[in-house]
Parts: sequence; structure tokens; C-alpha cells
Amino acid sequence: MTRVRVDLNISLDGFATTTDQTPENPFGEDWGRLTAAYAATRTFRERVFHDTSGAGTTGVDEKYAARYFENIGAEIMGAGMFGLHANPDDPDWRGWWGDEPPFHAPVFVLTHTPRERIEFANGTSFEFIDAAPEEALRRAVEAAEGADVRVGGGATTVREYLRAGLVDELHVGITPILIGSGIRLWDDLRGLESGYSVASETAESGVVHITFSRAN
Amino acid sequence: MTRVRVDLNISLDGFATTTDQTPENPFGEDWGRLTAAYAATRTFRERVFHDTSGAGTTGVDEKYAARYFENIGAEIMGAGMFGLHANPDDPDWRGWWGDEPPFHAPVFVLTHTPRERIEFANGTSFEFIDAAPEEALRRAVEAAEGADVRVGGGATTVREYLRAGLVDELHVGITPILIGSGIRLWDDLRGLESGYSVASETAESGVVHITFSRAN
Ligand SMILES: NC(=O)c1ccc[n+]([C@@H]2O[C@H](COP(=O)([O-])OP(=O)(O)OC[C@H]3O[C@@H](n4cnc5c(N)ncnc54)[C@H](OP(=O)(O)O)[C@@H]3O)[C@@H](O)[C@H]2O)c1
Ligand SMILES: NC(=O)c1ccc[n+]([C@@H]2O[C@H](COP(=O)([O-])OP(=O)(O)OC[C@H]3O[C@@H](n4cnc5c(N)ncnc54)[C@H](OP(=O)(O)O)[C@@H]3O)[C@@H](O)[C@H]2O)c1
Repeated sequence: MTRVRVDLNISLDGFATTTDQTPENPFGEDWGRLTAAYAATRTFRERVFHDTSGAGTTGVDEKYAARYFENIGAEIMGAGMFGLHANPDDPDWRGWWGDEPPFHAPVFVLTHTPRERIEFANGTSFEFIDAAPEEALRRAVEAAEGADVRVGGGATTVREYLRAGLVDELHVGITPILIGSGIRLWDDLRGLESGYSVASETAESGVVHITFSRAN
Repeated sequence: MTRVRVDLNISLDGFATTTDQTPENPFGEDWGRLTAAYAATRTFRERVFHDTSGAGTTGVDEKYAARYFENIGAEIMGAGMFGLHANPDDPDWRGWWGDEPPFHAPVFVLTHTPRERIEFANGTSFEFIDAAPEEALRRAVEAAEGADVRVGGGATTVREYLRAGLVDELHVGITPILIGSGIRLWDDLRGLESGYSVASETAESGVVHITFSRAN
């Protein structure tokens, strides 16, 4: 049975985005620090950075990194995560991920200004849809053919799905740094924990992994 | 050498206070859930609830609970934590803790409306002072006679001390529940981690313990 999964990196003060971007450093320093432990894992080095040497960490962070990619049949993301907000004037924008986006599955991009579908040779496609969360999920579940659906981000989209009660598993990796501003994951989610079992685990890197899961 | 220590319980969404108080339930349900793991420890049962049976948990939470009381020679707290905000019209208010406040040391209560000093037989005294954080700390360090000073709370007072760079050790127990509103510990503390080493540990209860420490 398809489970709806979320998997995000946040700072100790709860931010899923960073705000220190500059033209010279378009992701900012904070993004690097927020995701450093994940980016250092063997799985991320291979899947996102195409490093096939087998290098990378293999501890607790790697366990979650590997799980991130397991059994995902389709993805839903917001216009912000795909990059439409940062690149509003580029009609040919194809996402942040180059020619080998690490999804290998249909991705549904939620946006109020849909554009034409994009396909990559590695099985990743981006389809832009203006739809309620439930309707986008219905389409993603269908596309996933029994595998899981990941709501990939950003926090705005994830919060929509959490508030609608549509998420079966939420994993956050909390990096113990304070970013001070950005988009908060936890806003307006009082009582989210009820209906989930919650597990906490600490990685060698200092990242704290918290998982909310519910029985399907 | 005196270290300045902070030790708080916060929710996963970063709140150090709760807002679900009612006249019938003056602390609210959330306060109970926020502090449940701490309140269950052997140390808290003995020191705060005066249960001398030796009952209580003895795992990771207990390790931090015991440390909470170790080597504290004086305490600083805000008017809110002492209860002046909740009880503004009671000139005889003596704090939340009954006849045996668990401090056993001089406590300096920061307030813009100082009142008369209070003393208890167990060594606890409350002195009300209108002073800058540095000046209150100077007095607490003197009173501590070489032992540590705890800035006990609430979050407003703690943030003042953190922002002023006056805290040597910050321990937070993060309970994985979402409270949704209240006073946030982490506001306006971007970059706090620099200058500290940060350690994370997970308790059997699910509480995540994070400690910022700096070499003196
Ligand atoms: N920390 C992490 O793990 C993580 C993971 C992923 C992404 N991120 C970061 O998150 C940031 C983006 O997050 P974000 O919260 O700003 O934005 P987002 O969630 O990616 O996108 C929100 C936008 O998606 C569109 N949208 C959402 N729901 C919709 C619906 N039901 N119907 C139609 N359109 C809908 C709207 O855009 P329009 O109205 O403009 O069309 C909305 O403004 C990026 O900086 C990315 O790097 C972080
Ligand atoms: N989660 C935890 O571990 C924890 C620990 C302790 C307390 N708490 C909770 O925290 C709440 C209280 O926290 P809070 O943030 O509202 O308030 P607080 O920090 O206890 O007190 C803030 C108040 O102290 C006075 N004050 C602070 N600095 C001052 C200065 N330099 N000079 C003069 N006065 C100063 C001011 O009061 P006036 O201007 O009114 O005099 C100010 O409004 C309580 O609900 C308590 O239960 C939680």
C-alpha cells in the first residue's frame, strides 16, 4: 500500500529554507551547513552528486539517506522547490538538478502557473499542475503504481499536506544550527504528533533524526 | 570557575511556554506533556515533588535532571517564571514552589517592579532586582561563591543572556510535541552555535537533549 512520505532537513530553530543567498553564492552558506551531514553520506554522494567511487559516510545519517530514495514511485513538490520562484523569467528552466535529476520517477510540481511537461532520459519527468493537495496526491498515487509518494518540499507545500492529514511518515533531520529566518516547517501544526508514533535518533554528525509514523 | 548555565524544556516547535491554561487547569495540559519525561526522573521526583521513595526513571533524562541541580550556587530568573505576571495583584505571592522551593540558594528575580526580599528555611531566597543582565549576573556570581549560576528562565530572560553572550552552557530537552504558540526560545539567535561545541543525545522517553558548551 502506498505511503505518503516527507523527508526534510531543518535547523534547530525550525527553518527549512535559508536566506543568506547572494548572486555570487546562490545557495548561501547556510544551505551547505544545513545539509552537510546528508550531503556527506554515501547515498547522497552517489544519487545526487553522481560520485560512483563509493565514498561517503555510512552511519546513522546514511541509514536515513538510503531510506530517502527507497521505494519512491512519484514525487510532489512546490513551485519554490522546483525553482520557479527563483527563476520566474526563464521559460526554459528545467530545475536545479542538471541532466540527471535524482528522482527517477514522475514529479508533480504544484504551481498556479503551469507550464509544459519536461522529461529526462533517466525516468524523471516534471508535470506542472494547479490542483488541490488531495487531487495532486491522487495523481501521484496513481503514477506511483503501488510504491510510495514523497512530498519533497518545500516547507509551504509540506505544511499543506501535514495540515490536511495526508502524510503517513514524516522524517526530519535537525541540524543543530540556528539560521534565524526563513520558512518554518512547524508553523500552525499544534498537536500534529497525535495519531503518530514518534521516534528520535541522534547521528554521529550531531544531526537529530525525528520520525513521525502512522499505521496505514 | 563559575559557569553560567541554562537548562530548559522546549517543544519540537521551539516553545518554552504553553498557552492552554484554564482557570480549572492553571498549568494546562501542554505543560504536563512538555515536562513529563523530566518530572518522571528520580531527581525531579525527589527535588521538586519531595518524593523520597527513590522512585523515578534512571536513564538519559535522569542524567540531565541530576546535572540540573549540580553545583548551582545562585539562580537568575525573570518575573514571568517567578509568577509575577500571572499573579500581578497578589503582594504576598511567594512563587509556585510552596514552602520548599527547589533552589536551596539565592535567586535573583529580574523585574521592573521590585518587591521585598523573601527567605525560606531551606536556603532559598528571592531577591527582586531591576538591573541589566550583566549587573544581575555580577551579583549572582558573587552570591554563588565559586559555584555555577543558572539562568533558570523563562525564555525571555534566557534569550537576553544568550544574546548578550553571557551563557557558557545551554542544555535543552526537546520534547517531540507541537504546541503551536507561546514564547519561542530560538528567536533572534542566528549563529548562536558558533563559539560553542554542540552535542546531541536521545533519551529512552523520546526527548532529545542538546547541549551547547564553551570552554571557559
Ligand atoms: N530543507 C529541506 O529539506 C528542503 C527540501 C525541499 C526544498 N527546500 C527549499 O525550500 C524552498 C522552497 O520552499 P517554499 O516553502 O518556499 O515553496 P514550495 O513549498 O516549494 O512551493 C510553494 C509554492 O508552490 C505552489 N503551490 C503550492 N501548493 C499549491 C497548490 N495546491 N496549487 C497550486 N500551486 C501550489 C505555489 O506557487 P505559485 O503560486 O508561485 O505557483 C506556492 O507558493 C527552496 O528554497 C528549497 O531549496 C528545502
Ligand atoms: N520551558 C522551561 O523549561 C521553562 C523554564 C522556566 C520557566 N518557564 C516558563 O516560562 C514562563 C515565563 O517566561 P517569560 O519568557 O514569559 O518571562 P520571564 O523570562 O520569566 O520574565 C520576563 C520578565 O522579567 C522581567 N525582566 C527580564 N529582564 C529584565 C531586566 N533586565 N530588568 C528588569 N526586568 C526584567 C520583565 O518583567 P516586568 O517588566 O514585568 O518586571 C520581563 O517581562 C512561565 O510560564 C514559566 O512557566 C519555562
